Amino acid sequence: MKPTIAVTVGDFNGIGPEVALRAASDPAIRRLCQPILIGPLAVFRHAAPLIRRRLTLEKRSASAPGGSALGVMDIGDGIAADVTYGAPTKASGKNAGLAIERAVELCLSGKVDAMVTAPASKEALHMAGYDFPGQTEMVTLFSRSQKVIMMLVSRALRVGLVTVHTPIAAVPRQVTAEKVIEKLQLLHGALMRDFGIPRPKIAVLGLNPHAGENGHIGREEVEIILPALEVVRAAGIIADGPFPADAFFGKKRHTSYDAVLAMYHDQGLIPLKLMSFGSAVNVSAGLPIIRTSPDHGTAYDIAGKGTADPSSTIEAIRLAVAMNKARSGANA
Amino acid sequence: MKPTIAVTVGDFNGIGPEVALRAASDPAIRRLCQPILIGPLAVFRHAAPLIRRRLTLEKRSASAPGGSALGVMDIGDGIAADVTYGAPTKASGKNAGLAIERAVELCLSGKVDAMVTAPASKEALHMAGYDFPGQTEMVTLFSRSQKVIMMLVSRALRVGLVTVHTPIAAVPRQVTAEKVIEKLQLLHGALMRDFGIPRPKIAVLGLNPHAGENGHIGREEVEIILPALEVVRAAGIIADGPFPADAFFGKKRHTSYDAVLAMYHDQGLIPLKLMSFGSAVNVSAGLPIIRTSPDHGTAYDIAGKGTADPSSTIEAIRLAVAMNKARSGANA
Repeated sequence: MKPTIAVTVGDFNGIGPEVALRAASDPAIRRLCQPILIGPLAVFRHAAPLIRRRLTLEKRSASAPGGSALGVMDIGDGIAADVTYGAPTKASGKNAGLAIERAVELCLSGKVDAMVTAPASKEALHMAGYDFPGQTEMVTLFSRSQKVIMMLVSRALRVGLVTVHTPIAAVPRQVTAEKVIEKLQLLHGALMRDFGIPRPKIAVLGLNPHAGENGHIGREEVEIILPALEVVRAAGIIADGPFPADAFFGKKRHTSYDAVLAMYHDQGLIPLKLMSFGSAVNVSAGLPIIRTSPDHGTAYDIAGKGTADPSSTIEAIRLAVAMNKARSGANA
Repeated sequence: MKPTIAVTVGDFNGIGPEVALRAASDPAIRRLCQPILIGPLAVFRHAAPLIRRRLTLEKRSASAPGGSALGVMDIGDGIAADVTYGAPTKASGKNAGLAIERAVELCLSGKVDAMVTAPASKEALHMAGYDFPGQTEMVTLFSRSQKVIMMLVSRALRVGLVTVHTPIAAVPRQVTAEKVIEKLQLLHGALMRDFGIPRPKIAVLGLNPHAGENGHIGREEVEIILPALEVVRAAGIIADGPFPADAFFGKKRHTSYDAVLAMYHDQGLIPLKLMSFGSAVNVSAGLPIIRTSPDHGTAYDIAGKGTADPSSTIEAIRLAVAMNKARSGANA
C-alpha cells in the first residue's frame, strides 16, 4: 500500500500552493505515494491554473481512499479573494499555521505517514499569532517534542546543524558540549531510523578557521567539540573530527561519511547548496513524526506567475516516502 | 622578455623545497618565465632527487641571464643535515624567513618581477624569531605596507577576505565599516591593476545567516556592511550585496561577478576550495609587490616522500606572471 503524505499549503501569497500542487500532481509522485493537500480548497482551486496541467481537486479526509483526483483536506478559512500574491498577510499566515497544526495531528494519529510543508512566511505567521522562529520549531512543539535537529539532505550530502538561524556573534556561546552531544545523538538516531544506515559515520566540522589549529585560532574545538565527541564515541557513535571545514569539503572528504555536522548555518549550507543544484530537502530530524520541506522560501517575487520550480518539493516528498519506508522496515 | 619569478624554499622540513623544485622546473613554467629559487642551495640539492626529473641546479644572482639550468639564489645557512622531514625546527624556520625577506627585497628593487612563496610553518618561523601570524603579514611588513587583502583565486572564483585567521567569536567585532571599506578598496584596486579588469563588479556577502534577514538575525548587515557599501559606491566602486552566502553560491551568482568579498575565512574558502579542485592560489593583494602562494600548508605528513602535488604552486607562478603582465600593461 502506498503511503499517504500530507502536503501543506504554505503561505498562499507566495509560491506555496503552486509548488504543492505541482509536486503533488507529478505523475511519478502519484505512483510513489498518495499525497493529500492540507489547506483551503478555494485557494488551491484559485492556484490550480498556474500549473497548466489537467487536474481535478476533490475534498477528502486523510483516511479516504484516493482516486484519480487529487485530494484536498479543506481546512482554514482562505478564499480566493484573500490571495494577494507578493506579500505576507494575516490571512496567509493564519492558513499556513492551521495547515501545519493539522498536518502534525494527522501524523501523530497515524492518519498520514509523513508531512511535507510548503514554504511559509515567518512574518505572516507572526501576524496571525504564531510566534515561532520558523516552521521547524512549530512542528517540534505541536508534535510535543523538545529536541530536533535541522538537516539538509541532497544526493551529494547530508548536513545537520548545531545552530540554525543564529547571528554569528551568538554562535560561539550556543555551541556548548551539551548541544553538540544532543545534536550528534539526534543525527545518529535519524541516520539509523530514517535513512536505514545501520552504523552511520558522522564527520564533525570545527567552529573556527583551520578547526582552531590546536587552540591557536579559538579554543572551542579543544574545550567543547573534542570533549563532546569523546562522550558520544564512548556511546558507540562513530563521529570523526573536528575537521577544518574548507579543507574537508575541498578534499571531498564528505564522500566518506553518511552525514556532516556543521556548527552554524552557512558552514553547512554553502557546501550543501553548491552541491545540490536546487534539489536539497530540509528535514526536521529526531521527531516522532516525519517532516520534510523544500529548501527555499516563499519567493514572493515570482508568486502567482506560474514559474515556480517544484523540484525541491518533489524531492521533499520522495525523501518523506523513503524515510517512512525506512522507519516501517525498522519497526517490522 | 620573460619575467623573473622568485620562488622561496618554504619550510624545508615540509614539502616546500619539493613543490618549489617541481613547479619551477615544469617545462610549461620554464617557457612562461624565468624562475629563480630562493633558499639554501644544499637543501634544494638534497630535495632534488624527490622530483625524479633530470635537473641541473646552479647558483645564480637574480639579475643573471638564465640558461638551461635552474637558478638558485643561495641564501640562508641550511645544509642537508639540517633537514628533518616532518616537524618544524628553528633551522627550517630561519631559512624560510630569510628567503621571504630576500624575495621581498628583490621585488622592491625590481630585480625580480614577482615572488611566490612555498608553504612555511608558522611554528618554525616563531622558533626562529619571526613572530607573525603568517607569511602574508611578513610580506606586508617587509614591503613597508600597512594594508593588504588576502585573496584566493581559482578559475571559478576570486574571493577576498575581511577577516582571515580570526576565531569565529572575534569575527563580528573585527567586521567594522572601516575595515569593510578598506578591503573593498584594496580588492577593487587589485582587480583593476593586477587582473586587468577595467570596471570590476564585486559581490559582498552578509555576515549572518540569510544576510541577517533585514536585521532579524543580527544587525551587522544593516549597521555596518550596508553603510560601508554606500561609501564605496559613492566613490564609483560597483559593490552589490550584502548577499546571503548560501543562496548566493547555490544560485551560482558568483559567475556574474569579478570577485566576492567574504566576511570570514570559511565563508569564502569553503566555496573556493569546493570549486577549485586543488588549484587555488593565495594572493596578497594591495601591496607594491606581487606575491602569490599555493593554498596548502607544509604537509609534514608527506614531506620527503616525493608525492607532493605541485599544481597549486604551478598555478601560483602562472598567476604571478599574469599579474605582472597586467601591471606592466597598466603602466605602459
